[in-house]
Amino acid sequence: MTQISGFERAFEPRSIAIVGVSRSKQPRHFGSSGLSILRALHHSGYQGCLYPINPNATEIDGVRVYSSVLSVPDPLDLVIITVPAVAVPQVLEDCIAAKAMNVHVCSSGFAETGEEECKKLEEKVKEIALRGGLRLLGPNCMGIQVPRARITTFDDVPLVHGPVALLSQSGGHAYRFLQYGSTVGVGFSRVISYGNAAVMDVTDLLEYIDSDPETRVICLYLEGVRNGNLLTSMVKQINLVKPVVVWKAGLTDAGARAAASHTGSLAGNRQIWDAFFKQTGAVRAGSVEEMAEVSAALVSLPPSLGKRTVVISGGGGNNVAAGDICAEEGIQLPPLLAETKNELSEFISTVNQGLTNPLEAPSLFLSPSQMNRAMKLLDADPTVDMVIVSLMMAGITRKGIDVADRMLDCLANIARGKVFHKPLVITLSDPMTAEAVRYWQQIKQAGILWYPSLRQACRAMSRYASYYEFVERAGGCSPADL
Amino acid sequence: MTQISGFERAFEPRSIAIVGVSRSKQPRHFGSSGLSILRALHHSGYQGCLYPINPNATEIDGVRVYSSVLSVPDPLDLVIITVPAVAVPQVLEDCIAAKAMNVHVCSSGFAETGEEECKKLEEKVKEIALRGGLRLLGPNCMGIQVPRARITTFDDVPLVHGPVALLSQSGGHAYRFLQYGSTVGVGFSRVISYGNAAVMDVTDLLEYIDSDPETRVICLYLEGVRNGNLLTSMVKQINLVKPVVVWKAGLTDAGARAAASHTGSLAGNRQIWDAFFKQTGAVRAGSVEEMAEVSAALVSLPPSLGKRTVVISGGGGNNVAAGDICAEEGIQLPPLLAETKNELSEFISTVNQGLTNPLEAPSLFLSPSQMNRAMKLLDADPTVDMVIVSLMMAGITRKGIDVADRMLDCLANIARGKVFHKPLVITLSDPMTAEAVRYWQQIKQAGILWYPSLRQACRAMSRYASYYEFVERAGGCSPADL
Repeated sequence: MTQISGFERAFEPRSIAIVGVSRSKQPRHFGSSGLSILRALHHSGYQGCLYPINPNATEIDGVRVYSSVLSVPDPLDLVIITVPAVAVPQVLEDCIAAKAMNVHVCSSGFAETGEEECKKLEEKVKEIALRGGLRLLGPNCMGIQVPRARITTFDDVPLVHGPVALLSQSGGHAYRFLQYGSTVGVGFSRVISYGNAAVMDVTDLLEYIDSDPETRVICLYLEGVRNGNLLTSMVKQINLVKPVVVWKAGLTDAGARAAASHTGSLAGNRQIWDAFFKQTGAVRAGSVEEMAEVSAALVSLPPSLGKRTVVISGGGGNNVAAGDICAEEGIQLPPLLAETKNELSEFISTVNQGLTNPLEAPSLFLSPSQMNRAMKLLDADPTVDMVIVSLMMAGITRKGIDVADRMLDCLANIARGKVFHKPLVITLSDPMTAEAVRYWQQIKQAGILWYPSLRQACRAMSRYASYYEFVERAGGCSPADL
Repeated sequence: MTQISGFERAFEPRSIAIVGVSRSKQPRHFGSSGLSILRALHHSGYQGCLYPINPNATEIDGVRVYSSVLSVPDPLDLVIITVPAVAVPQVLEDCIAAKAMNVHVCSSGFAETGEEECKKLEEKVKEIALRGGLRLLGPNCMGIQVPRARITTFDDVPLVHGPVALLSQSGGHAYRFLQYGSTVGVGFSRVISYGNAAVMDVTDLLEYIDSDPETRVICLYLEGVRNGNLLTSMVKQINLVKPVVVWKAGLTDAGARAAASHTGSLAGNRQIWDAFFKQTGAVRAGSVEEMAEVSAALVSLPPSLGKRTVVISGGGGNNVAAGDICAEEGIQLPPLLAETKNELSEFISTVNQGLTNPLEAPSLFLSPSQMNRAMKLLDADPTVDMVIVSLMMAGITRKGIDVADRMLDCLANIARGKVFHKPLVITLSDPMTAEAVRYWQQIKQAGILWYPSLRQACRAMSRYASYYEFVERAGGCSPADL
């Protein structure tokens, strides 16, 4: 890394300059304009000093505007650049002169366009940054979010503090990770989009984020990487202590072409990346959603005991699908222990509710006392590593809102480890309706780990359990020891 | 089939008896109690005569109750049985005596329990039905829905008339198919759950449904089937005229065990079913959602031209993911024709919007006139078979609700074939929020084929296109000729 000391100020800045703030949001772009970043920082409640830069304005949104970073009277911990690509080199020279060393270049129009001129411009940006010692993120990125410091360049996403970091070449994916992650109960330490990685590459950022005590799980969205060997050896080491979740995109031909035109990245081939995952034990993900889902399990569950799982479900056909889904995702469904079966059969009727696994037991969903009793039995059963409860809220609410509320209270109590001490996950098998979204929010607010579907739950839980298996085989220290 | 003539009355009955209607919904079950079926038929606006049967009551919900099917004064087109399993044989004898030949047995507690006594009870049911010539669905099923006749045994699901039929061993999946299907724009001709298939098996039902002129796509949810060879030869023939979509569950060990305890089915092995799909060309699905999604494409799109697709998206990282997803799902993304590219570049800026495929073109989503122009060019391009538009509504609404509304109007107009005449699909890349659900509903109401995610869209479109490829190779008549 160029210089790590001083870099942490970029994520807890006392002062931020935003270069290229005009009076209107540029309607051509979906991404971050200077004005939208200024407003996002206002909305988020950022407490430091903000310096919008625009040589042709004196005031925007009631804030004094400066003509250049050089005219700002205070030291700048972070400079966010949103001017057109051709104007970026001069701003960088100004940053060097102003000793503002942390720079995020959100402007696009560089190597990702594939055009010679634009590639040369990126080379020039790189040369200036290296010469001046700038810690430069980008170009072609969408900035950062640090909820604890109330910093965000992403407008209209919630700031949820927590232990999950994301390093993403795509600003759009970073944005979606913030949106979706918070719906499945993920909170964020630092979310950093780094675009074309002209200067700071993922290995530099990984060195920094590894040293951040708040971060317990690190997610990476990669299109390409310059130094694959370095990344492999870093992830190999870090992953034994902090799980590293990696979504490597662009592994198909069509994806690789898109990666080239998105961040100018060389995507690499599938065999090399398969070897990367095998060697490092990094947790593989295939989308923003999958990164968030497995992160949720890794941060909110105790260390995995294994993959032997009991699925409790309410419906017959769902049970058959559950068997297939678990098998396909590598979740084991051993038969119940004879003793557990006997005790369960004392209060679970066997008519249409054979005591198999998945356990079809609709009656449990209507009786908190029966649900508690069943969970106590599964807690005591040494052949059960975890439990997945597949809820169909529509089936429960039909019996009355109070029945549904009591069951959610009961499950929240169980999930808090009052009744059941092993990993527990809830999934909803309801279709996507506004009512279902309301229940999802209730479940999330109750602090229960949940997923929108059994498929997503099984995939996340299988990866979570595989992570612990890898760490145990590798003899690393467990995240739980930290 | 036992006797097909007279069977159609079961789905357009002038009179229905419901045997086993008590004053309270039995809280133990999620499935259909007699009372909930009676109420579902009241709510749905069924116009025929309803006869609740209960020897211990004279009136329920203001409706006169009869003591047995024998005491009903009119001919019964359909008898729905919900009494406990042991009481079913006597009710069947009564049906024979009353010449009520169409019987749905919703009661459970038969072969699916795995218990000897219960298996014997199912044998007895079968023997009575065959002796008396009853067309018996079940036992252990959840009834039917026929929206045009305003008949439903499923409470609180919408009645949406349309050309898609479902034959399902699982009542729960039938219920979810009705719920989810309507959200992706599927309407239903007949949805029939047939549980343990003791008498009427899928091949009998298929013979009936094939002859139904309203049905244009047939979905099957199978756990097991008695006569695999017959099914194969029937599907082989029917599929060339009406697409047959099949979800065969229980192909993993865990799934097969669950199938045995759900409908007492022998699930069969994977190789046999692979051969079934290869020989018949049936459309393979892996969930209720996938059945509904591919059905939506098959009924609402013109015949496929092929798999060469242009994806229009708004965001950079999404574009890379789109490339990977298309490749993984078998959707081809050829480069744009030079001529098309030239014309598009007249109004689409290339800065951060390289004219590759997937086509990253956020500006199109903010300008109906540009979107129209682009779609006209793709319509004229002979190398483009279909278009998938990947919308991020959050990016559009940020520019104002009116901008979003104008874009939805524009897309609705395009989808109606006013501008673009090839298959067109919309997907949303927004996270699942109440706001997103609202947009989904707007898109659906506008009559546009849409899917909640690009993955789902690509999977459905790839299967839809494969279906037409199979039919063309097999030289069958196309559904479009019907």
